[in-house]
Amino acid sequence: MGMVGGGRGAFIGEVHRMASRLDGQIELVAGAFSSDAEKSRLSGQDLFLDPDRVYASYEEMAEREAARPADERLDFVSIVTPNHLHYPAARCLLEHGFHVVCDKPVTHRLKDAVALRDLVRQSGQIFALTHNYTGYPMIREARERVQRGELGELVKVVVEYPQGWLLEDIDQQGQKQAAWRTDPQQAGASSCLGDIGTHCENLVHYVTGQQIAQVCADFTTLVPGRRLEDDAQLLLRYENGMKGLLYASQVSAGEENALRLRVYGTQGSLDWQQENPNELILKWPDRPRQILKPGNPYLGAHAQAGSRIPAGHPEGYIEGFANLYREVARAIRDRQSGTDNAPYDFPTIDDGLAGLRFIATAVHSAQSDGKWTPLIEV
Amino acid sequence: MGMVGGGRGAFIGEVHRMASRLDGQIELVAGAFSSDAEKSRLSGQDLFLDPDRVYASYEEMAEREAARPADERLDFVSIVTPNHLHYPAARCLLEHGFHVVCDKPVTHRLKDAVALRDLVRQSGQIFALTHNYTGYPMIREARERVQRGELGELVKVVVEYPQGWLLEDIDQQGQKQAAWRTDPQQAGASSCLGDIGTHCENLVHYVTGQQIAQVCADFTTLVPGRRLEDDAQLLLRYENGMKGLLYASQVSAGEENALRLRVYGTQGSLDWQQENPNELILKWPDRPRQILKPGNPYLGAHAQAGSRIPAGHPEGYIEGFANLYREVARAIRDRQSGTDNAPYDFPTIDDGLAGLRFIATAVHSAQSDGKWTPLIEV
Amino acid sequence: MGMVGGGRGAFIGEVHRMASRLDGQIELVAGAFSSDAEKSRLSGQDLFLDPDRVYASYEEMAEREAARPADERLDFVSIVTPNHLHYPAARCLLEHGFHVVCDKPVTHRLKDAVALRDLVRQSGQIFALTHNYTGYPMIREARERVQRGELGELVKVVVEYPQGWLLEDIDQQGQKQAAWRTDPQQAGASSCLGDIGTHCENLVHYVTGQQIAQVCADFTTLVPGRRLEDDAQLLLRYENGMKGLLYASQVSAGEENALRLRVYGTQGSLDWQQENPNELILKWPDRPRQILKPGNPYLGAHAQAGSRIPAGHPEGYIEGFANLYREVARAIRDRQSGTDNAPYDFPTIDDGLAGLRFIATAVHSAQSDGKWTPLIEV
Amino acid sequence: MGMVGGGRGAFIGEVHRMASRLDGQIELVAGAFSSDAEKSRLSGQDLFLDPDRVYASYEEMAEREAARPADERLDFVSIVTPNHLHYPAARCLLEHGFHVVCDKPVTHRLKDAVALRDLVRQSGQIFALTHNYTGYPMIREARERVQRGELGELVKVVVEYPQGWLLEDIDQQGQKQAAWRTDPQQAGASSCLGDIGTHCENLVHYVTGQQIAQVCADFTTLVPGRRLEDDAQLLLRYENGMKGLLYASQVSAGEENALRLRVYGTQGSLDWQQENPNELILKWPDRPRQILKPGNPYLGAHAQAGSRIPAGHPEGYIEGFANLYREVARAIRDRQSGTDNAPYDFPTIDDGLAGLRFIATAVHSAQSDGKWTPLIEV
Repeated sequence: MGMVGGGRGAFIGEVHRMASRLDGQIELVAGAFSSDAEKSRLSGQDLFLDPDRVYASYEEMAEREAARPADERLDFVSIVTPNHLHYPAARCLLEHGFHVVCDKPVTHRLKDAVALRDLVRQSGQIFALTHNYTGYPMIREARERVQRGELGELVKVVVEYPQGWLLEDIDQQGQKQAAWRTDPQQAGASSCLGDIGTHCENLVHYVTGQQIAQVCADFTTLVPGRRLEDDAQLLLRYENGMKGLLYASQVSAGEENALRLRVYGTQGSLDWQQENPNELILKWPDRPRQILKPGNPYLGAHAQAGSRIPAGHPEGYIEGFANLYREVARAIRDRQSGTDNAPYDFPTIDDGLAGLRFIATAVHSAQSDGKWTPLIEV
Repeated sequence: MGMVGGGRGAFIGEVHRMASRLDGQIELVAGAFSSDAEKSRLSGQDLFLDPDRVYASYEEMAEREAARPADERLDFVSIVTPNHLHYPAARCLLEHGFHVVCDKPVTHRLKDAVALRDLVRQSGQIFALTHNYTGYPMIREARERVQRGELGELVKVVVEYPQGWLLEDIDQQGQKQAAWRTDPQQAGASSCLGDIGTHCENLVHYVTGQQIAQVCADFTTLVPGRRLEDDAQLLLRYENGMKGLLYASQVSAGEENALRLRVYGTQGSLDWQQENPNELILKWPDRPRQILKPGNPYLGAHAQAGSRIPAGHPEGYIEGFANLYREVARAIRDRQSGTDNAPYDFPTIDDGLAGLRFIATAVHSAQSDGKWTPLIEV
Repeated sequence: MGMVGGGRGAFIGEVHRMASRLDGQIELVAGAFSSDAEKSRLSGQDLFLDPDRVYASYEEMAEREAARPADERLDFVSIVTPNHLHYPAARCLLEHGFHVVCDKPVTHRLKDAVALRDLVRQSGQIFALTHNYTGYPMIREARERVQRGELGELVKVVVEYPQGWLLEDIDQQGQKQAAWRTDPQQAGASSCLGDIGTHCENLVHYVTGQQIAQVCADFTTLVPGRRLEDDAQLLLRYENGMKGLLYASQVSAGEENALRLRVYGTQGSLDWQQENPNELILKWPDRPRQILKPGNPYLGAHAQAGSRIPAGHPEGYIEGFANLYREVARAIRDRQSGTDNAPYDFPTIDDGLAGLRFIATAVHSAQSDGKWTPLIEV
Repeated sequence: MGMVGGGRGAFIGEVHRMASRLDGQIELVAGAFSSDAEKSRLSGQDLFLDPDRVYASYEEMAEREAARPADERLDFVSIVTPNHLHYPAARCLLEHGFHVVCDKPVTHRLKDAVALRDLVRQSGQIFALTHNYTGYPMIREARERVQRGELGELVKVVVEYPQGWLLEDIDQQGQKQAAWRTDPQQAGASSCLGDIGTHCENLVHYVTGQQIAQVCADFTTLVPGRRLEDDAQLLLRYENGMKGLLYASQVSAGEENALRLRVYGTQGSLDWQQENPNELILKWPDRPRQILKPGNPYLGAHAQAGSRIPAGHPEGYIEGFANLYREVARAIRDRQSGTDNAPYDFPTIDDGLAGLRFIATAVHSAQSDGKWTPLIEV
């Protein structure tokens, strides 16, 4: 694989690299790690790469890799830059014939997401979006239980993602991760909702299969001088009548990555928390609660396949992330060998576009003082 | 003490009785336990009461008890009927000179709450409202920590109270507790929000001292044929700028009484859950989380006074409820002895009126498709 | 009821009083609260008792109460003194025809326990021992599940009760509760094991029905100058072949009353913790774990009867204690009305004797450097 | 790196491989994956290895790799076979000049551990033992807190490791992992204690620095026909006077890998559980409990260095394991570059020998009906 972004000082790039390495099926062989050629070179050196395959830009990488013999060429490229570069980089790579893995949100503007969707469709290439929380085994199990109807008809979802890392104005003091995430030019129309709220939206969709119909949003910018919201709370209405409550925050003091999902149906409910991801709690009106844990034979096959080690040995964020990469590798291998073992379980460009529509709708509602706003059509 | 309501088949009446007995300072000596005279008589018999002091109506009780010599007369009366009877009973008892303890919400109509507020003020009698969750020691501690400024400026509150007991249409099949709570004539304009959402609203106010400024509400009636909402989710704006998220539900499958309060400030946050009430978690941006437990010397004096037994021996719902009764008993004793050791820590008629204003505002917002609605003035 | 001990400054006496009051079936009407007549008098006054029924000694109480007309006489007496007074007080009261409730351990010497056992048998009076942890609803459920064979054959039990309150030498600095518990003249041959280790032993017996066959003990006295052990760890062998591991400590820093019981069988296991007593966790080799909570219809009838309020409203230590008193009241009422609705669920003199045999055996083993010691015969 | 063992059907080999891959610093390039040459070949193929470097035996690998030019030669070899092969393989590899990583317990016989210790000392090669639980960041923090004296003098340790996977006689039905672990020829004198009890022993030593002085053991073989114990409970005495309680079980129904460590000192205590490894709880006599989580600035530098991703994103078993490999890689790099940045944080041959002494002592005590037995000298 190759990589765009993720040079020295970056955060999510190394996560992608660890996730791709874990199962010994994917090897990083090339990269354009920074728009600063020297920094890219040094980053490649840190990673023991062949200097010839460390590039100064994604354009250069796309061109020169495409020119290599088929069996020495990159299979796919991971894009791990700030949001505003996702679209141009993805477009360039797709156009040069590479499969693409892209960090979320898929683009920083809705119109780019639409364009990219069209491009992906037209290219026929694989495009995977790393809404990585869907890779947790217990989230796979949650989806399967919902699909089997164990919860009955779905009536409500509560999803939350409080963080506290932007409580101070570190974005205005040069902390790089904070700076671009709160910069409309790089992040898009939303900070908090775009960065973590879309994980919530996607997670609900993954587990329940439901589509948002209407959004009522209230945004807050707590820290003076910050240009985008750092806290968002939303009421949701889904197409099937399910109600939803979503909140995301970057200014919840003392919170780390407390993503939690609760889904309520007419016959039962489920509860999952990212910080202790190896428990899925099922609650029933008339039976004892159940705690499901990974690696156990009572789980569905797909959830079981998401564990690498026996029950009781915790796997975490990197392993969940790696489950997406494993699915991407499987899809690419199948494509290369001319077989098709779909479904492959990774978020797609459609999920990416749904996320951007959600962001745009919520921004509109928040700007209209919380008016219930139908999901923006594209 | 005397009691109105709480006869055979009732629920909350016995809770009040247990709470009042626990500390050996209050004795139930009279009651009008049912509007059915025979049922009232039998209920009094169950309670080993003198038959002469078991009455067929609160009017009769008020009149005849008032006629007794001062030192053989009731000190106060607890009203534990369905909501619509709170106001007439309270009025009658106050007018006959009795102090009153009343279950929540204080009335079933806003205008009655206003009238009652005026009457209480005018009478000078003690009026306590049993928003019992404020009696938990760790909630007292939470308030003290907030008041001391440990959390910094308050920026957000998340309060939730999911239950699942009305998931089936038991209200339409004769379950008495369910029937009156979903009957507008008895419960008022709201079921779910009135019954448990007001606990949320009151708990936030108790702990933070803040007043709601605006409400954006979405109500759901899940069960066909039910006349009032059984699920409510709300966005809140407080007068100090604090944001809020409140949800209450009677149709969350598998939930029991999962009241939870989270308060976020600029310097820290707190987290408390009613089903395991003996832990208060404090979260800090830069220090390890703390778990506070009752009965420990590191707590404030008022929280410590809320425990009856040493640390590590759990106290629960009844003990928290009894803490309110203990405060009422203290207030009445002081009144009788002509002293004043205020503050006394029990919710008052003002809290009751605030609750009714909150309900009315939320109902209005929900009926206006979630329009942000300022708290209704009275 | 009457009470021996529990005057001003005592701890467990007020617990017994709260427990006895809670359900409105028992009234405290007499007491010998202290061996100091004036202190007894003042304590009675605190409790609003008739001064004529507040006595200077249990002998006086026994005699004078026995002389009262049958329908004005005490039904039973609770003994809540330090250990060494249990036997003489119980003997005196039984001999005067009173039923007895007694705090644990039943006596401070094994021989007294044997004598008391004989006396109770001979008298035919009711004798209840307040190993109160057996009153928790989830412990009742645990027992029922074991009896039904859900766990299969029992193979192992792990029971622990760490406290930290004696980490400093408060017993040597005049803290009264600490002083008598570490004084061989008042507490008996053991402090830690006698005070809390017997709860462990009794709880295992209650839940599993098994008898200890052999004990291997290691005692520690951490605090210099203390005369009895403040930490005890034991390996156990039960008559059915079950192995056991028991530890109790008064010097485990930061622990409060962390009693925990785990029972392992060939088909499943259970896990319960006193500090969060409203959860019973069942673990299975091939199925998801279950969390059982009080007040739910899936519980056995006896566990259900142990709750006073609906599921999700926590009940704690006092309520569990009160469940014992409720059973005692039921037994006495039945006795008085000539009926028998056994079984009544409270620990008996046989449990008390078993506890003393356990203590004596453990002390012997500890003094023999951990030699496996058969349970001492009596 | 190279590998001995870990072919198709093995368990721990793949764990070592994932751990070694995670940080991109170590590459598996050679292996003798099975004593069956064909199986070794196929395993190498699964791993995309050069067939020339996939060997039929560790002897062949040692010889042929040693014959390669220095810069194309293996740096170190991981031994992941059943216990009885650790010693001969390690000896052979050390003698050919390779550094060694070896799974635990270090050998299956005490005398081999002694011989290996001598050989390692003499060779000057790096030898790392994968007691992987010491790699968890919160265990590093625990050690640092103890070393800093925060808990005061240590008085007691409680360490437990219950599993349930051997509850049935799968070892007698051909389950390979179970079969060798219960075979004295392959596992050594102990199954349960050797496989998981040594983790407990090592973890206590890592965190507290204390040495066992005496052991009192009780072994159980629950499953008929099994040749080694499947449950062990021990009382321990440490050289500094600290008491200990250790239990390990393979037949605790419903348990997975519930390793837990509690350390009590005169001023505080700590509590850590492997199944939720990202919390370290500190308990204090006079202050609120604290929950420490990885990735936070309030942790020591070494604990912080053990996290790869920000606070709140869980890392687990593989990451902890990888922390050992990272330290091994660092040590080897330093060795190769002629520098020394000790200490390197991985268990050594001395830890391995301590483990074997512990096993032998416990076996002796268990065979002497629990006689307190001093740690066997070597």
